Amino acid sequence: MNRISVAQPKLAGNEKNYVLECLDTNWISSNGKYIGAFEESFAKFCGVKHAIAANNGTTALHLALVALDLKPGDEVIIPTVTYIATANAVRYCGATPVLVDVCQETMNIDPREIERKITPKTRGIIPVHLYGHPADMDPINEIAQTHQLWVLEDAAEAHGAEVRGRRVGSLGTCATFSFFGNKIITTGEGGMVTTNDDDLAARLRLFRGQGMDPNRRYWFPVIGYNYRMTNIQAAIGLAQMEGIDKALSDRETLAGWYNEALAGLQNEIVLPQQAPWAKQVYWMYNIFLRDGDGTKRDAVMRHLDEMGIETRPVFYPMHVLPPYHEETAYPVADLWAQRGINLPTHQDLTRADVQRIADSLKRALA
Amino acid sequence: MNRISVAQPKLAGNEKNYVLECLDTNWISSNGKYIGAFEESFAKFCGVKHAIAANNGTTALHLALVALDLKPGDEVIIPTVTYIATANAVRYCGATPVLVDVCQETMNIDPREIERKITPKTRGIIPVHLYGHPADMDPINEIAQTHQLWVLEDAAEAHGAEVRGRRVGSLGTCATFSFFGNKIITTGEGGMVTTNDDDLAARLRLFRGQGMDPNRRYWFPVIGYNYRMTNIQAAIGLAQMEGIDKALSDRETLAGWYNEALAGLQNEIVLPQQAPWAKQVYWMYNIFLRDGDGTKRDAVMRHLDEMGIETRPVFYPMHVLPPYHEETAYPVADLWAQRGINLPTHQDLTRADVQRIADSLKRALA
Ligand SMILES: Cc1ncc(COP(=O)(O)O)c(CN[C@H]2[C@H](O)[C@H](O)[C@@H](OP(=O)(O)OP(=O)(O)OC[C@H]3O[C@@H](n4cnc5c(=O)[nH]c(N)nc54)[C@H](O)[C@@H]3O)O[C@@H]2C)c1O
Ligand SMILES: Cc1ncc(COP(=O)(O)O)c(CN[C@H]2[C@H](O)[C@H](O)[C@@H](OP(=O)(O)OP(=O)(O)OC[C@H]3O[C@@H](n4cnc5c(=O)[nH]c(N)nc54)[C@H](O)[C@@H]3O)O[C@@H]2C)c1O
Repeated sequence: MNRISVAQPKLAGNEKNYVLECLDTNWISSNGKYIGAFEESFAKFCGVKHAIAANNGTTALHLALVALDLKPGDEVIIPTVTYIATANAVRYCGATPVLVDVCQETMNIDPREIERKITPKTRGIIPVHLYGHPADMDPINEIAQTHQLWVLEDAAEAHGAEVRGRRVGSLGTCATFSFFGNKIITTGEGGMVTTNDDDLAARLRLFRGQGMDPNRRYWFPVIGYNYRMTNIQAAIGLAQMEGIDKALSDRETLAGWYNEALAGLQNEIVLPQQAPWAKQVYWMYNIFLRDGDGTKRDAVMRHLDEMGIETRPVFYPMHVLPPYHEETAYPVADLWAQRGINLPTHQDLTRADVQRIADSLKRALA
Repeated sequence: MNRISVAQPKLAGNEKNYVLECLDTNWISSNGKYIGAFEESFAKFCGVKHAIAANNGTTALHLALVALDLKPGDEVIIPTVTYIATANAVRYCGATPVLVDVCQETMNIDPREIERKITPKTRGIIPVHLYGHPADMDPINEIAQTHQLWVLEDAAEAHGAEVRGRRVGSLGTCATFSFFGNKIITTGEGGMVTTNDDDLAARLRLFRGQGMDPNRRYWFPVIGYNYRMTNIQAAIGLAQMEGIDKALSDRETLAGWYNEALAGLQNEIVLPQQAPWAKQVYWMYNIFLRDGDGTKRDAVMRHLDEMGIETRPVFYPMHVLPPYHEETAYPVADLWAQRGINLPTHQDLTRADVQRIADSLKRALA
């Protein structure tokens, strides 16, 4: 039987045409017309004025923090359950990520826990829209306003997700996205920063392009980075944008199939939630075992693997990883990070695949 | 008349075939077979055991310094005439670049000036093989050995250059390359680190891939980076490697044409040199005005531009740029950086193009 991968890209539109055009016209570096076109299309999709492409989601995060002027000694509030890039980007600036526990329903930063972590050194908050479910932005933005903090949405995993009808990417001071090969849309590797702030957009472009003065070749008023996306990546990105509505609806359909196929297992597992104010986009269809610790979860994953089904564990919380280790307990994170499994989620899965996964899971849980 | 660009890629081999294969097999991220194949081919070309691909030459430099364990407070010796990425990579680690003047003949770091800049904080030396001419590695390696320093070759501009018959990339502790669209071979954006050191190679791979434990998903013992090259970039790189011998011989031919066409202007300009121990690869065919300052040079470049010929100035030395500003005089750098011009150098230039450039230059100098 075929192996089912946890994720894979879907290149079903103009990807090849646009890439061939790059090769035929000989524009393959970070100079080329697709970069602006992809940025424009992505900005429109998010409903923001500016989108600045980067070479991946990690550099997009770092670029945003540099442009926000994050400095050594500063503190930034992040959820403890996230992919490590969120925390690392803060550290790249010499600043300190301050961890907050997550909500049980959404696995996202718990707004009720933020305020007591704010100190005079706090500069901003990075809510992460984990696995496609948006964080609860309204209370977060309120806290930020009260304490004069910026809000950077880490939307690496949540292209198209919505909070009260408004798309992520437009809900904070700025936002970042990833286009790695396992994401909702992909450029192979790639990233984006979105913002409505004109000054911030100019700074993002400056720092992305080595900090070079746009009017004076090889004159660098500041220390910048080479975080540029190539024309070929952007060509793929533009083609993917043409298919993003279908990508989102395919994922909704897929989640529906999963909900149905797994309905009988609800004594053993919790199915993914959607908060009443949210539209989640199922980047990863996520289940949680109702009991047991990491050992049990890992055994279930091993069983599934033996049956040809690739999965992923929920991320280790930051506070258990060596670079960010703390003795503090983060009760929700501690429990759920040991029990979460990402099931295969991509556009090429059929209803039969989902049934096979559900059957295998049932056997693995037995 | 056609505009002549200062540089452009030459995609004359299997580039399109290999890229199409990535798209057809659906492997477009930093997972995929071309990455290893390109790394292997490049390692062989340099005569080293390991080559580790990165997403550009700047991240390759940073990655190398991270793997070499460069830390805040440390010092690194670099030439003041270089592209700013060399200095910035040192700063990304919180360390300090210590500047040294260059040799008049090669524009590369002057080994005679290095030793008096060494302090107890010095950790290494980064010679830069500028514009395709290698730095004088033997005395540099000797000094490094005496003081127990590492040597990182910045070979971004010098693929295939040789020192006493041995290729750059194999002449220090490790070396970095760039594959930007204007380089001798290109991947659009791209970079590489080469080394013979097994431990260093393992560290480079670890830090390039977010610092993730290769045997434990989402477990990160260290803070790493996303500096991965994509399969598509590597596919282009592998095809470029198949044409690199021709790329190098085409550039030698081109330099010969320039030498002939410009021979009559030697009262006004100095032609590029090649040290007796060196093979230079003419990344940029570089000329120097015999007198005047930046204003005169810029006027010559403006004239050339009006005649449809794109050029580049020699880089501003680091010690005049705001982030690295010093009052110290670096006499050779101060003089030559104001008088240098990169003439168009790429594989699509014809003998007639070179004659046109020479004629235009003559008029511009008059
Ligand atoms: C909250 C948050 N913030 C920031 C970031 C940083 O973004 P970025 O990765 O720097 O762009 C991220 C990104 N995190 C990702 C990273 O992108 C990371 O690289 C990835 O980790 P992984 O699970 O170890 O990834 P993988 O095993 O390489 O790929 C996952 C699946 O996708 C498939 N896949 C990836 N690329 C391709 C491809 O080109 N072709 C095919 N067919 N399959 C592909 C693999 O085969 C796997 O089945 O998944 C993580 C969750 C993030 O989640
Ligand atoms: C010593 C040293 N160390 C480290 C680095 C860092 O490497 P990296 O750039 O991070 O990979 C470098 C790289 N420095 C380069 C950088 O790569 C930099 O981006 C570049 O600066 P630039 O002169 O401002 O580059 P440009 O104007 O964008 O491109 C130069 C010419 O090449 C052409 N070109 C570039 N890409 C393409 C392309 O895809 N197609 C075509 N047709 N032409 C292209 C442009 O049109 C120009 O004519 O040139 C610098 C000298 C280095 O020299």
